[in-house]
Amino acid sequence: MIFASRQKLSTLTAFSHPDWNMDDNGMRIALDAMGTDARPISDIAGGVMAARETGDTILLIGDEQKIRPELAKQNTAGLSIEVIHAPEEILMSDKPANVMKSKPASSMHLGMQLVRNQQADAFVTMGNTGAAHAIATLSVLRRIPGVKRPALTIPYPVSGQPVVFLDVGANVDARPEWLEQFAVMGGLYAEIALKKSKPRIATLSNGEEEGKGNQLVRDVQERLRHLNINYIGHIEPKELLKAKTDVVVFDGFVGNIFMKTFEGTISYLTDVIRHELMSNMVSKIGAALARGAFRRVRKRIDPDEYGGAALLGVNGVVIIGHGSGSPLAVRSAIMQARIAVQGNLIDNIRTRLEQLNIHGGDED
Amino acid sequence: MIFASRQKLSTLTAFSHPDWNMDDNGMRIALDAMGTDARPISDIAGGVMAARETGDTILLIGDEQKIRPELAKQNTAGLSIEVIHAPEEILMSDKPANVMKSKPASSMHLGMQLVRNQQADAFVTMGNTGAAHAIATLSVLRRIPGVKRPALTIPYPVSGQPVVFLDVGANVDARPEWLEQFAVMGGLYAEIALKKSKPRIATLSNGEEEGKGNQLVRDVQERLRHLNINYIGHIEPKELLKAKTDVVVFDGFVGNIFMKTFEGTISYLTDVIRHELMSNMVSKIGAALARGAFRRVRKRIDPDEYGGAALLGVNGVVIIGHGSGSPLAVRSAIMQARIAVQGNLIDNIRTRLEQLNIHGGDED
Repeated sequence: MIFASRQKLSTLTAFSHPDWNMDDNGMRIALDAMGTDARPISDIAGGVMAARETGDTILLIGDEQKIRPELAKQNTAGLSIEVIHAPEEILMSDKPANVMKSKPASSMHLGMQLVRNQQADAFVTMGNTGAAHAIATLSVLRRIPGVKRPALTIPYPVSGQPVVFLDVGANVDARPEWLEQFAVMGGLYAEIALKKSKPRIATLSNGEEEGKGNQLVRDVQERLRHLNINYIGHIEPKELLKAKTDVVVFDGFVGNIFMKTFEGTISYLTDVIRHELMSNMVSKIGAALARGAFRRVRKRIDPDEYGGAALLGVNGVVIIGHGSGSPLAVRSAIMQARIAVQGNLIDNIRTRLEQLNIHGGDED
Repeated sequence: MIFASRQKLSTLTAFSHPDWNMDDNGMRIALDAMGTDARPISDIAGGVMAARETGDTILLIGDEQKIRPELAKQNTAGLSIEVIHAPEEILMSDKPANVMKSKPASSMHLGMQLVRNQQADAFVTMGNTGAAHAIATLSVLRRIPGVKRPALTIPYPVSGQPVVFLDVGANVDARPEWLEQFAVMGGLYAEIALKKSKPRIATLSNGEEEGKGNQLVRDVQERLRHLNINYIGHIEPKELLKAKTDVVVFDGFVGNIFMKTFEGTISYLTDVIRHELMSNMVSKIGAALARGAFRRVRKRIDPDEYGGAALLGVNGVVIIGHGSGSPLAVRSAIMQARIAVQGNLIDNIRTRLEQLNIHGGDED
């Protein structure tokens, strides 16, 4: 095991934790080698990076014919890396409902089966989010008993610090009792992944006052007030952007609109400022001098820095990253998976929902 | 009537139209003098500005004891301005449901009664939005026959041009058939207020592909596809920010989250950039040189420029502006009202809904 580059690498992402380097006698992380847009190149490079940094065993799952030649280009001396052949490949264009049954030997199926059979501690993919969600929830791993719906959960960078967002896309039409569980699972995730004690939990709404919000968030508020969690009430987008909470809960539609508006506005404003700065010579000189500052700004707010989404509520640690992810993003997603495993995320969700007596019910 | 300053003033806001200066033999605009946070000062100043610019009669409605001394400070020679006393005042803190019946002699009630009785062509207020909405919809003006719900509608500046947004707050829990009507009313508003022919109409969603969206927007899409309007389908926040539509339809909750996220992100990013630019001497010099560009950027995206919200679907032109509005914002709201009157907005809504056969139904 080679640990030489640990410190260097751990400073590279916004959400590195000292704990990511904990020695845990080697985990086994199942990594979808066919996930990124640059499959299997970025996936393998990220996996090798993580293997070197952690000493873990990385199980590369996918088309062996494609994996072996790429892996041979890497320096893997002393690393623990295994290749597991998966004959079927899930594409970004595949419909989640279809692949679940039509491609039972995909890298996603096999990776999750390893987790289910306790041959791996976690599964990481940069592939089709909907497919990973469907295969995990409805086929291979299934929901933790008592969980009504799993939620896609990401530590999202606002004001330079991560806030746990959920749900970010899995449940566009949600019921109050689902969001109630999301709040609890998200709180646990903030404790484990962000080391927050008594994390603040909020509901995104159009106003903070009593009676604001639509029916859904008003119902959720009513439920959360009666739970023994640190629920701080409704929060508006402006306050969320100041990171005035550690966890924010919304349905997948609103969560997606929020994130896409945030990211779209940043692109928009950057374009407008660039255009304005180039409009005359004085501004151009100013822009040239200010270039370093702009670069730092972009880095601070780069959504690619947040790694992957954790699928909370299934029987196993599953992290789903961006298809456009670089090797570094793949490595970040693996690190995220390790923390969840170290923090006993799955057992904790089970126990906490039971303690709060909000497990079970309409398991349709 | 004094028209000297017309041209100058008409260049001051983003959405000035040549048509605002049309001679129409004098409208009568009822203006709530007790609307802005700086009541009645800004309200009166804006009203006087509009009276001078248009030659219209401005009816200042509110506490006469407060209005007269302020009006006396203005040069009103040759202008047509009337003061109508309203003994009751609606505060920003008032609950809409309460004021509707508890303050029947408020400036809002009286102003809308003038419209109802055809003693005024339109009503403009910078006061409590919820109160104005409730008084118009449930008490004084009532819904246009066949309209299921009125919608708050604003021409919102994105990418330097106005896009008609509705609903922006009145209906946080909406039904598909309401949004269907919003699309039609919003399209008409784009024709009249923005002079768009065959305006593009879109639904905001988390994706543009078939099957994306929550149940509400999918149902709305299905309905709009069958109408004889220029419906272009779902649009994502990023595309909306590029003004790839003329009208966007959403429920009041999602619309509010979108706008607050957009505005919050601009504030956030401006702060981050300012902080970064000040972090070292080279950047500071750059920032100083680029200052003019930043000022122009702020002006381009200033949400205060959009004037007021039109309450579409009631029997009369009602424009509700921001309480923080300056005299210029009050004047803009009056100009917005004039355009709606000139364009026969109310009759057009009635006719169009009938033509499309989507009037009437569940008028609960």
